[in-house]
Amino acid sequence: MSKPTFPWTLSERAARMNPSVIREILKVTERPGIISFAGGLPSSKTFPVAEFEAACAKVLRDDPAGALQYAASEGYAPLRETVAAMLSEQAAAQGQAWDVSPANVLITTGSQQGLDLVAKVLLDKGSRALVESPTYLGAVMAFTPMEPEVISVASDAEGLDLADLRAKAHYNGQAARFLYVLPNFQNPTGRTMTEASRAALSQTAAELGLPLMEDNPYGDLWFDTPPPPSLTARNPAGGIYLGSFSKVLAPGLRMGFIVAPTAVYPKLLQAKQAADLHSPGFNQRMIHEVMQDGFLSRHVPTIRALYKSQRDAMLQALAQHFPDSATQPEQSLTWNAPAGGMFLWARLPVGMNAVDLLPHAVDKGVAFVPGAPFYAGEPDARSMRLSFVTPSVEEIHRGVAALAAAIREQQAL
Amino acid sequence: MSKPTFPWTLSERAARMNPSVIREILKVTERPGIISFAGGLPSSKTFPVAEFEAACAKVLRDDPAGALQYAASEGYAPLRETVAAMLSEQAAAQGQAWDVSPANVLITTGSQQGLDLVAKVLLDKGSRALVESPTYLGAVMAFTPMEPEVISVASDAEGLDLADLRAKAHYNGQAARFLYVLPNFQNPTGRTMTEASRAALSQTAAELGLPLMEDNPYGDLWFDTPPPPSLTARNPAGGIYLGSFSKVLAPGLRMGFIVAPTAVYPKLLQAKQAADLHSPGFNQRMIHEVMQDGFLSRHVPTIRALYKSQRDAMLQALAQHFPDSATQPEQSLTWNAPAGGMFLWARLPVGMNAVDLLPHAVDKGVAFVPGAPFYAGEPDARSMRLSFVTPSVEEIHRGVAALAAAIREQQAL
Repeated sequence: MSKPTFPWTLSERAARMNPSVIREILKVTERPGIISFAGGLPSSKTFPVAEFEAACAKVLRDDPAGALQYAASEGYAPLRETVAAMLSEQAAAQGQAWDVSPANVLITTGSQQGLDLVAKVLLDKGSRALVESPTYLGAVMAFTPMEPEVISVASDAEGLDLADLRAKAHYNGQAARFLYVLPNFQNPTGRTMTEASRAALSQTAAELGLPLMEDNPYGDLWFDTPPPPSLTARNPAGGIYLGSFSKVLAPGLRMGFIVAPTAVYPKLLQAKQAADLHSPGFNQRMIHEVMQDGFLSRHVPTIRALYKSQRDAMLQALAQHFPDSATQPEQSLTWNAPAGGMFLWARLPVGMNAVDLLPHAVDKGVAFVPGAPFYAGEPDARSMRLSFVTPSVEEIHRGVAALAAAIREQQAL
Repeated sequence: MSKPTFPWTLSERAARMNPSVIREILKVTERPGIISFAGGLPSSKTFPVAEFEAACAKVLRDDPAGALQYAASEGYAPLRETVAAMLSEQAAAQGQAWDVSPANVLITTGSQQGLDLVAKVLLDKGSRALVESPTYLGAVMAFTPMEPEVISVASDAEGLDLADLRAKAHYNGQAARFLYVLPNFQNPTGRTMTEASRAALSQTAAELGLPLMEDNPYGDLWFDTPPPPSLTARNPAGGIYLGSFSKVLAPGLRMGFIVAPTAVYPKLLQAKQAADLHSPGFNQRMIHEVMQDGFLSRHVPTIRALYKSQRDAMLQALAQHFPDSATQPEQSLTWNAPAGGMFLWARLPVGMNAVDLLPHAVDKGVAFVPGAPFYAGEPDARSMRLSFVTPSVEEIHRGVAALAAAIREQQAL
């Protein structure tokens, strides 16, 4: 029997949308026995299961009708207050005066939804969105349906190239709609923007009238010292801050938030209402309940300690298996040493290509994500992202050994 | 101190987006002591709280890491299977062969998100989306950010005017992208499309090559007999079906689903991934857990019985307070008798206007939603939506008495 056909006409934006390259890669690497440095998953060991159990029971006991009924699009008021207080306190602890009002907090269905809402409210077809190079692929995927030009600004381990930013912030008499940045322990590179870079970027953006979209899912996951203070806190009227509970509590509840200035908040709220009416009230109350009595101040340090030990294991294994990285960097794998977060950024020997290497690495029993898909502009084909949080320390050592074997074999060809 | 300013440029679509008129109305009516026929909230008495408590505990005990981790954008596989089986069984019980495959089921963050995804994948700026007259306001709000023309097709208690549909399905050499319909116990009118109307609409849409977007949040809430069979089941290749757990379990978990043909599913999935990565896995497992052992087949009849008794109370109160509705329909309130769902549609005496009446009704202690905002085209200013599910039977009687007093006072002026 032939398949039924029907003359569907898809939107022009649908033609621009693509399956996530990384998602497709992950499917290949999901074979049993593969040690995966590829995923972007927090360690499930860090999920506070007992606290969630207690929170579920309490939420359903105290106000089941409230938790299960339709609710305000802005989010659960006590959670918005908690978020505002948390950000204000964090800023104060770093010597910043960022007085976040609950009225500027919008609860979102994961911070991914924040990107979708920002795109709807700020991007027109053909308008320009600026991103780092490389940048978070999921952000580009969220922007794409609004049909912008996504333009990458040259970036390095310190921060953005401000001359390149100035050159790209205006074009044909128009202004770029925003710059999207992930200043802390970036996905994919693990990089953290320096204080000097932040100060200069903040000043330049203000001069240019360029809004900053600051995405901060990893900022709490510092290993030794907190990262420099937030960009948004330096100029709240000119930025939108996106936060997440996925890395400090659990991603499976899909809870994030936006802090937006009053000039933009009402439109983001209308977009939110049209997108899913509101984020699950039950989940918002669970998160709020778990956060009582300063739980995060006890819980997050345990995540930091775990991830730090795993980063250390990966750095140690890399140093052991690639002893020539300092002396012969072009003939060796090289890598950075992230000061927090979940990812490390590595670079293959000259002439090699991470996409080509991947199937050989998988044959050896280890997977990673090639860096190329994270570039909106010209990719670095030698780059790769290594996650150190999902495998155990023992697996990290075996995985790096397998990666080294795969690279040597390819080099010997 | 003057407020900080910053030169934000909003998207063109943002200018089209508006606060929900109904939401603004509801704020006015949220004064204590007001009997509200205005809200669209299911009765919280129907929420299966004990079952949710047990499901939470089980989900967190059996597989906490799975429930709390990132998950597939398509949704939790066992829930997709459950949805597919449920729809296939419902169709079979009505003599239809609709073999829904789990591969065509996409779990969404409420069925509102389904509307957002459909709009992204099918609507371009200036393209045409057809809707009933009146229609669900939230659908128009979901379509608006994609900047279509939303055009209403003449409709009555039986269904759509197919001559009007044919006249509007093509324009300037282009085809409308879809027709959005809510065939069962529609929001706002409570109307149900007859079998004859469905058969004719399905055939006409197939001839025209016009995709049908069938939204069915209320279909299970029939009082005496099930509504006629689904439109999508008659031509699955030419339609998208949107379903919801909000009215049969609880809205606060934000759980809905789409059934889409293979020609469209991959793009909806990509839009879903960009929108929020996936719907909360924890909630999907809770819903799946609660649905085990045929729970809905025991639970939904209790909702039907409750809502039927409340509809009966409203019909009785209306008949009592507006005894002239049959003999002098233009001088009286008139209304329909929905065979299910949550809403009743009423019409004020000639010369009156529901928007103008509302503040006077609120003064008397009762609230409703004027019908005008539900029209994409020319509104019927005399129409109003009365929800019978949130107030108690006693409140329904008092509320209708107050409504009658407000109308008489306005008529006497």
